[in-house]
Amino acid sequence: MKTVNIGLIGLGTVGGGVVGILQDHQEDFQRHYALDLRLARVADRNTARFTQLGLDPAICTDDAFALISDPDVDVVIELIGGTGVAKDVVAAALEAGKRVVTANKALMASSGHTLLKAAEDRGVELRFEASVGGGIPIIEPLKHALTANKITRVLGIVNGTTNYMLTHMSERGLSYDDALAEAQAKGYAEADPSADVDGADAAAKIAILASIAFHSTVTIDQVHTEGIRNLSATDVAYAATMGYTVKLLAIAQLTDEGIDIRVHPTMIPAGHQLSSVKGVYNAIYVTGDAVGDTMFFGEGAGAGAAASAVVGDVIEAARALADNNTTLGCTCTDDLPIRPITELETCYYLRMIVDDKSGVLAKMTEVFAAHDVSLDSIMQQGVAHDGTAEIIYVTHRAREEAIRRVLAELEGLDVVTEIAALIRVEAL
Amino acid sequence: MKTVNIGLIGLGTVGGGVVGILQDHQEDFQRHYALDLRLARVADRNTARFTQLGLDPAICTDDAFALISDPDVDVVIELIGGTGVAKDVVAAALEAGKRVVTANKALMASSGHTLLKAAEDRGVELRFEASVGGGIPIIEPLKHALTANKITRVLGIVNGTTNYMLTHMSERGLSYDDALAEAQAKGYAEADPSADVDGADAAAKIAILASIAFHSTVTIDQVHTEGIRNLSATDVAYAATMGYTVKLLAIAQLTDEGIDIRVHPTMIPAGHQLSSVKGVYNAIYVTGDAVGDTMFFGEGAGAGAAASAVVGDVIEAARALADNNTTLGCTCTDDLPIRPITELETCYYLRMIVDDKSGVLAKMTEVFAAHDVSLDSIMQQGVAHDGTAEIIYVTHRAREEAIRRVLAELEGLDVVTEIAALIRVEAL
Repeated sequence: MKTVNIGLIGLGTVGGGVVGILQDHQEDFQRHYALDLRLARVADRNTARFTQLGLDPAICTDDAFALISDPDVDVVIELIGGTGVAKDVVAAALEAGKRVVTANKALMASSGHTLLKAAEDRGVELRFEASVGGGIPIIEPLKHALTANKITRVLGIVNGTTNYMLTHMSERGLSYDDALAEAQAKGYAEADPSADVDGADAAAKIAILASIAFHSTVTIDQVHTEGIRNLSATDVAYAATMGYTVKLLAIAQLTDEGIDIRVHPTMIPAGHQLSSVKGVYNAIYVTGDAVGDTMFFGEGAGAGAAASAVVGDVIEAARALADNNTTLGCTCTDDLPIRPITELETCYYLRMIVDDKSGVLAKMTEVFAAHDVSLDSIMQQGVAHDGTAEIIYVTHRAREEAIRRVLAELEGLDVVTEIAALIRVEAL
Repeated sequence: MKTVNIGLIGLGTVGGGVVGILQDHQEDFQRHYALDLRLARVADRNTARFTQLGLDPAICTDDAFALISDPDVDVVIELIGGTGVAKDVVAAALEAGKRVVTANKALMASSGHTLLKAAEDRGVELRFEASVGGGIPIIEPLKHALTANKITRVLGIVNGTTNYMLTHMSERGLSYDDALAEAQAKGYAEADPSADVDGADAAAKIAILASIAFHSTVTIDQVHTEGIRNLSATDVAYAATMGYTVKLLAIAQLTDEGIDIRVHPTMIPAGHQLSSVKGVYNAIYVTGDAVGDTMFFGEGAGAGAAASAVVGDVIEAARALADNNTTLGCTCTDDLPIRPITELETCYYLRMIVDDKSGVLAKMTEVFAAHDVSLDSIMQQGVAHDGTAEIIYVTHRAREEAIRRVLAELEGLDVVTEIAALIRVEAL
């Protein structure tokens, strides 16, 4: 039996979940893995949480760095979040030779490479399974079980908040505002929902996944990111009539010109496995040259799910410590370029408000043709009181660059009142 | 760079896939993992395969044991299959101190415990990711990423052949015989389809998964197994009208009375994630106390998928060898009883052919009541030319034991011509 002392920094929702698992399953871990995982120190600035969780005052501190410098602590769990003090804490813990486990996607998506290098230099491990997909095992399968493959694509629904909103916009016709209000009332969205609805959360996660899958460092600022704030119920409804579901997809693809990486609302075929991922669930689709398509599905958030991943990482770190094993270093051995979004080639759904005059359609279609963008379908909706009509185009595969030129030119036409929506369509 | 010499025994479809990956990705593995994986020896009784695969005659032998005793071979891959010579080969390789990778579900589901113990005693590793779910990472997540959980249930579609047949029985109304003929024509079913259609393949896989998930050895002979041979298109069609899909599920649940483990055709809600798993795809649903529900989906068979898992295991074994790491031993530390099928409590779909006389329904309903089996729904279908009618019952949750007594009594009634179907219904 090996005793491993854990220092836990950050007692929020996930931290509370971690405390619960360590308490409830201590005997199981002893019996199954010959590991005695002890919560040796906890740190939080909000000291009221110590008593709320019934923790022994002797192990509690409001100073994260005191915890890190405690020679008894073997594994440090960082659950502060963000890229400020959390970064200093992780760096200091690694420097002190501790194994570190974090759930911090923003940190890993911005400074992951530097921190992983620091861990490798010190011969310790930095684990971050909880940073993507809550409790869904996805980092570990990419780093281990799927290594025989050249991974060519990773994509998925990695933000539960927006998936909850999109599910209810789609199934109940809710507007964006109503869906957001409902998500906030249920505790799925924060008071300031920006990180979720504007796509930064998903962008961080796909940057992390791409880095591992393609063995090349990708940071959050390299991800072309569009959220769902401007998505209207109208387009969600049109998508359904055309056999599509709208999802906020995070997509990373390996192309001959580099890594194509982006987050945006996406129309996918209603029959695709990802279409049936509803509510706050997450699912990540991984395509490899040998394995074909695989999918990993589960709760993307919540205290239990995230704590499951955190404690799973702690057990791995503890096993390595018990066996004196060398741990897996960074495998970002390649240095691939990021393909600019303008070079993207996909299909596009465009909704425009136009004056209902004869010859409008012909005039617009000419613009598409002039830029070599061919059309898959055109749908004209009834005329409104103000004499405008709605026209929906779905293009065949086209370059984003060409689409942007088409839109600029269409906007210049006096018959075009508004370009109301552009949504990318992926056949998957 | 660490050179690791691989000995591959068995050059069938999966073996050919393994050769392909090792050849195509040798440089990738060198760059990403600092591992030079060399195919040092291959063995097959069918020596024609050596030239078919373009292998250097100098590394080929028809004697598996010669390969094993070669001191240069570090990792042995066993792809012979079955429980005969494969068992001797794996045992001998472990005894010789080799790391062993196998895709052999029948072997692992019958002698896994003994072989894992032998590996542990010798301080080497026996890996078997490919034995369940083809290329889907499932063994490794259960052994690593999900260890923080008490796993309470593992269930899924783990046989691609029968799922292909059921998909087409459901979507196109094919009979069992036609679905089988089509699966055989497409190469998804063997000339002798018994192992697939009678459930033994699925039983082996769920025995392996249950052993890992519940930390308790379960062997294939402990799995209550019913295949799809007697499943009629009639019941598949009725299931659809009632909002269910019929799948061959492999189910393992932890109960207070022990492990409930079984393979049988099962009606599941049409809206459930598993319902949309079609064709030869596999999906495994894992429920843990912290993580909630997770699902792992992908191609359950095929050379590429299985080879992906095999080579993934080889890379893990090679990493451990390169780093001189201790490998994970058997964690079957518990010794849980298997709950007899008669103690199962679930819902049941029953279809009966009866004489269309007045009072029949009342007489039959009395039998259910006498054994405390309450009914969720009753559906009577039109009368046939011969004066018989079809009655379908779906029960509330009931004990299998009680259902069996009900059936025995119903069979004794002279108005009951035939008990045409019993299918268990799981709400999931």
